[in-house]
Amino acid sequence: MSKPYVLGIDIGGTNTVFGIVDARGHVVASDSIKTRKHNDFKNYINELHDGIYRLLKANEAEDKIQGIGIGAPNANYYTGTIDNNVNLPWAGPNLPLAEEVSRAFGGIPVAVTNDANAAAIGEMTYGAARGMRDFIMITLGTGVGSGIVINGQVVYGHDGFAGELGHVIVKRQNGRVCGCGRAGCLEAYASATVLARTAREFIEIRTDPSSLRDLDLESITSKDVYDAAASGDKLAKEIFEYTGKILGDAFADMIAFSSPQAIILFGGLAKSGDLLLKPIREEMEKAVMPVFKGKTKIILSELKESDAAVLGASALGWEAKYRAEVPVDNIHTAAAVNPEN
Amino acid sequence: MSKPYVLGIDIGGTNTVFGIVDARGHVVASDSIKTRKHNDFKNYINELHDGIYRLLKANEAEDKIQGIGIGAPNANYYTGTIDNNVNLPWAGPNLPLAEEVSRAFGGIPVAVTNDANAAAIGEMTYGAARGMRDFIMITLGTGVGSGIVINGQVVYGHDGFAGELGHVIVKRQNGRVCGCGRAGCLEAYASATVLARTAREFIEIRTDPSSLRDLDLESITSKDVYDAAASGDKLAKEIFEYTGKILGDAFADMIAFSSPQAIILFGGLAKSGDLLLKPIREEMEKAVMPVFKGKTKIILSELKESDAAVLGASALGWEAKYRAEVPVDNIHTAAAVNPEN
Repeated sequence: MSKPYVLGIDIGGTNTVFGIVDARGHVVASDSIKTRKHNDFKNYINELHDGIYRLLKANEAEDKIQGIGIGAPNANYYTGTIDNNVNLPWAGPNLPLAEEVSRAFGGIPVAVTNDANAAAIGEMTYGAARGMRDFIMITLGTGVGSGIVINGQVVYGHDGFAGELGHVIVKRQNGRVCGCGRAGCLEAYASATVLARTAREFIEIRTDPSSLRDLDLESITSKDVYDAAASGDKLAKEIFEYTGKILGDAFADMIAFSSPQAIILFGGLAKSGDLLLKPIREEMEKAVMPVFKGKTKIILSELKESDAAVLGASALGWEAKYRAEVPVDNIHTAAAVNPEN
Repeated sequence: MSKPYVLGIDIGGTNTVFGIVDARGHVVASDSIKTRKHNDFKNYINELHDGIYRLLKANEAEDKIQGIGIGAPNANYYTGTIDNNVNLPWAGPNLPLAEEVSRAFGGIPVAVTNDANAAAIGEMTYGAARGMRDFIMITLGTGVGSGIVINGQVVYGHDGFAGELGHVIVKRQNGRVCGCGRAGCLEAYASATVLARTAREFIEIRTDPSSLRDLDLESITSKDVYDAAASGDKLAKEIFEYTGKILGDAFADMIAFSSPQAIILFGGLAKSGDLLLKPIREEMEKAVMPVFKGKTKIILSELKESDAAVLGASALGWEAKYRAEVPVDNIHTAAAVNPEN
């Protein structure tokens, strides 16, 4: 019989957040541990298990978990591993994430995916994409991530790594260097963090007045740019227009690929509202092929940012299939949360 | 009980080719009519029916057709209509293609899609993509078309028009005008027909010697460029390198989207072989994100060009679902090929 809860785990570079989620997408309870505290992957898994076990016990949910879904950078849905990670503190080309977590919990089924795919699944299960079979989730945070859904299924590609739309090339000449080692990627122009970089470029190259010029050039933040634009600063608004135009052009190409019903924006920069949405929509409508005009909506995520990552990851838990074989020495902790009991 | 044949119909701007195809992908018999002969859609359907009926009769296949698959420009899989067509002689925003063909054949199930999707389905069913669940078909003919397969399914998008990869923007500044009304599209740089245009640009802008300079500038054909390059002409080879580089860069972005196992090339320009494949592969490997390096194959279609369109369309016939209700006055011709008999 199916159990009433799933567990969602969101592994970020700094914190790992986990929560117990019910079938309606309510986070019943959540907690977190520091991701960076352990350089050893097994020690990290042990602390994660202990933290989760405490949460389950406090909520009398030890035997009520149907499955575990995990979102993590570079996590591969097919293999259950974290591959070639650069943002997490553990060495090793392929960390057996699904296996270790399933084993720690006595064989509960586990599914993993990357954080942007998890956000897309969360949106489809509980958010703005309910009922949509074709949409693209774009996360505008530290970087630009994406989760693509086609025919109601997340696009993983033949190797599990599809959906890197932050790394389509938007400037083929003299493009900004990107964290991926190439140049001209969308991520180098449209993340929440690079908005401040665009501001520095604008301030240096242009001569028109702006309240941003009163700030120390090197320490301008994206928040500063938002605040200035929101107060009507013309240069700051143009920084949003520049960013929105690049996103709108990139979206027009994405529409030519998969003709989604909507592109859903999530993450820090998405909170800028119309400052960003207006130029995106205008440019996208101008740039798309005639056959697609007026068809694809640009909308904001309906998930609370604090819950979204855990919710998205948790949604994977309902369908999770992978189970580790449980060694004898784990049975004492595992028994309480073993779905076979 | 399922029947041994399907019918494939490929509607092109000039000719409409149709064939009887068996389950192994052999074209048992085929014939064609002129598409342009009739300005009236119903007259065209009548002649198409008569031509096909003759072919069925000659092959004693009147009651052996499981379904009909049709590939046509701007054909919409979801609605069975040809929408906003510009390449076909019939006026009207939405021509009820599936309905009319099914009705003409007494209610045989019909499915329609555009020509590039039909090519992808043909490749997946009978060609180089057998066994692949994730690949992209790129047709380099008069234009640049694409059929995208993800998780074993053709990508139609929310409106049925997904997969317009000939119209991703490869030059955002000063791009060549494209037939779609925009500028900088892949199709304006990489179709079989525009190779001659690139040659004219190279000849005018550059000064180095080339056998192409002996030809009349305005009447240079893509075949001329191929012949010159194949005989070792340096400028002609660079025209292929330029074209291949643009394709390779565009493919790198497509890989970031869907991480396909292969990109399969089809159509006139694909026959250039290594002249084009080598620069595509080199640029693509240089341009893709590190995580995708060495993973996506560039391969050529394995379908005979003369058969491919009909084969691809026919493959849709096996799964075709749409049936028209048959009016009484059609029963006399319809009865012989009605699958309900």
